[in-house]
Amino acid sequence: MKMKNWLNVDDHHNFSMYNLPFGMFHRNGPTPGVAIGDYIIDLRFCAEKSLLSSLSFDTNVFSQPVLNDFIATGKSNWSALRKWLQEQLSDANSALAQNQNEALVDRPKAKFYVPVHIGDYTDFYSSIEHATNVGKMFRDPENALLPNWRHLPVGYHGRASSIVISGTDVRRPNGQTKPPGSDAPVFGPSKRLDYELEMAFIVGSENKLGEPIPVDKAEEHIFGMVVFNDWSARDIQTWEYVPLGPFLAKNFASTISPWIVTMEALEPFRTGSVEQNPPVLPYLQQTGNHNFDIQLEVSLTPEGGEESSICHSNFKYMYWSMAQQLAHHTVNGCNVRIGDMMASGTISGPDNGSFGSMLELSWGGKNQIVLKDGQSRTFIEDGDTITMKAACKNENFTVGFGECSGKILPALR
Amino acid sequence: MKMKNWLNVDDHHNFSMYNLPFGMFHRNGPTPGVAIGDYIIDLRFCAEKSLLSSLSFDTNVFSQPVLNDFIATGKSNWSALRKWLQEQLSDANSALAQNQNEALVDRPKAKFYVPVHIGDYTDFYSSIEHATNVGKMFRDPENALLPNWRHLPVGYHGRASSIVISGTDVRRPNGQTKPPGSDAPVFGPSKRLDYELEMAFIVGSENKLGEPIPVDKAEEHIFGMVVFNDWSARDIQTWEYVPLGPFLAKNFASTISPWIVTMEALEPFRTGSVEQNPPVLPYLQQTGNHNFDIQLEVSLTPEGGEESSICHSNFKYMYWSMAQQLAHHTVNGCNVRIGDMMASGTISGPDNGSFGSMLELSWGGKNQIVLKDGQSRTFIEDGDTITMKAACKNENFTVGFGECSGKILPALR
Repeated sequence: MKMKNWLNVDDHHNFSMYNLPFGMFHRNGPTPGVAIGDYIIDLRFCAEKSLLSSLSFDTNVFSQPVLNDFIATGKSNWSALRKWLQEQLSDANSALAQNQNEALVDRPKAKFYVPVHIGDYTDFYSSIEHATNVGKMFRDPENALLPNWRHLPVGYHGRASSIVISGTDVRRPNGQTKPPGSDAPVFGPSKRLDYELEMAFIVGSENKLGEPIPVDKAEEHIFGMVVFNDWSARDIQTWEYVPLGPFLAKNFASTISPWIVTMEALEPFRTGSVEQNPPVLPYLQQTGNHNFDIQLEVSLTPEGGEESSICHSNFKYMYWSMAQQLAHHTVNGCNVRIGDMMASGTISGPDNGSFGSMLELSWGGKNQIVLKDGQSRTFIEDGDTITMKAACKNENFTVGFGECSGKILPALR
Repeated sequence: MKMKNWLNVDDHHNFSMYNLPFGMFHRNGPTPGVAIGDYIIDLRFCAEKSLLSSLSFDTNVFSQPVLNDFIATGKSNWSALRKWLQEQLSDANSALAQNQNEALVDRPKAKFYVPVHIGDYTDFYSSIEHATNVGKMFRDPENALLPNWRHLPVGYHGRASSIVISGTDVRRPNGQTKPPGSDAPVFGPSKRLDYELEMAFIVGSENKLGEPIPVDKAEEHIFGMVVFNDWSARDIQTWEYVPLGPFLAKNFASTISPWIVTMEALEPFRTGSVEQNPPVLPYLQQTGNHNFDIQLEVSLTPEGGEESSICHSNFKYMYWSMAQQLAHHTVNGCNVRIGDMMASGTISGPDNGSFGSMLELSWGGKNQIVLKDGQSRTFIEDGDTITMKAACKNENFTVGFGECSGKILPALR
């Protein structure tokens, strides 16, 4: 099945006709765009040229520096714009084709912005393999999962201000740590800096404070997804996190990929949910397929060196679905707003090569992760770049996320 | 010392000439104002009438629905506006006096809005008495404080979306709890709904991501303070909080008082810091007085009943200062933004009557809190209104916060 288009973008391109993700790129300031092959379609230009006049929402939303106002127009309009784009790209005589010199921008050269205003950011902990690995390392190997873990999608609030776009350098954090055997904490650069391979969804429609979102309606409240690197300073975390959870170990930076892939584009990659045992409480029960088959890869590139793949995982391993996460988050009446970001937690698979953090890959720093050039790592060193890639693939086409990448700079002295 | 003013507001009024706090009230939509006695000065009106033309910032900031743009003009402008208001209120022939019929609004009848856009909300845990009480109840009475508590101001991220203004009803949350002796969790309304008496500060100037705010500069980054009720569902919290901290137990609502009292107004009430032992790491060390003498009171009013005072505490009891909280929050490079809100954690004093939560007052539900009309409570019941009041008082004048109040509605069924 080849979807015809005058740009000749292959169906197996990350940004195929089946994808059409939304982002904010730089063209005289933040500009909304849709990725297609090696191009970006400038939506502000399209709106200003009245190319979008057949759509039934106010296209002035594309003059805003974030996508929130567009998202607020609602699901039927996201879908209508997608359909319009597919039609325009299929027809060599379309208005878009006639304006292509101005409407299209080179994607590989573009700079990007965080595409939405993120009111609140929540991080879940929904991979059973990750939670089990962490439990084995730090608690009881025989009872690795805490008693609440299979009953609710454990989550906590994170920092929205320090979410940065792929390509932004990240400075190694200073902080308090308590070295083993030491009586008192010391201050200095984190020595156990890690990534966490996550995906995040972006809220697409709101609930009122006090009114929960039922689990079977929850997917309708999701606009789309990005790749998410929840950078973590393990030594800071170990000392600070009791009893109120991670704080400075996480809030120095999180990195997201620039393109929001819509739930409509992800629909063909829906897959079976993981069996939940014991059964969950009724407000979390769902039938049907609520996981998504998204192939994930992490690589590490030393400064001036070669890129080494260090992890392959998949979003389908999640024990708790996004719908369950959102239903749980709002069951107490908590309100979510358009643009809110909710990350999955580290996505680890069943085997060693699928562990979504260096903490797990090196098993707490005990094992060396060997790179292509013979160097090895237990945690991230200064100058290392961590790159995450995500893509959905079937026989006929690909829907990709592109990259979520960040380089670690030395700590301030 | 009486500060003359043509409204004849007493120096011992909560909203005396020495206070002049900022808020957003309703007058054809959200409108910025300053409280004086029983009036509000409409700053949007003052700007539109060019009464503020002697000030050196763009007074169009007062056309915005939140105070963030005004706060962004900087400390010297907050101070210049305060001085202008004091001069205008002292002079019966001033421009403000001549426009008083339009510029002044009745304060007691006004409706209020959350006065700032809150980018991120952080909650600390900085009262040693509260942390000790909680530790005694839930952990080891002999080692009530966790090892990190005296070394760093423990904090965590909370939910910004559900922060509501005083007077907003709050619905009792539903959620998962695990009753004592039960094998599995159950779902239903929280049975241990509590308040937490806190104060919160509002960030007044930003740091860049990666650049810490030193402790001796931290107070310059604070615009002012409000009273903060961190509503808490204790039974939900107990089950969910391991290992990543409180989540649904807190994020269903937090209530703030409508007026932001500036640090300049609080300056006369600066008082000695609490001695910290063991000594803290250098990045947290400060000299001088960094606590503030703010008298706090909590009352409970049953539906249709009489108000009973149930707690008297004081912000001066804080073990960790606001400056230390902000220095710690940013020492890893985390960026704060104008309007960010940072709450103190429950403010308990040394004696039983000064405990800042019902959890402590009833000692985990064991003791009855007796009200004036003979009713008693261990936790909050439906229809109860919790009201917090805060004021700084010396021989000469008062600087008050007014009320932070909220009524509990029954849970949804």
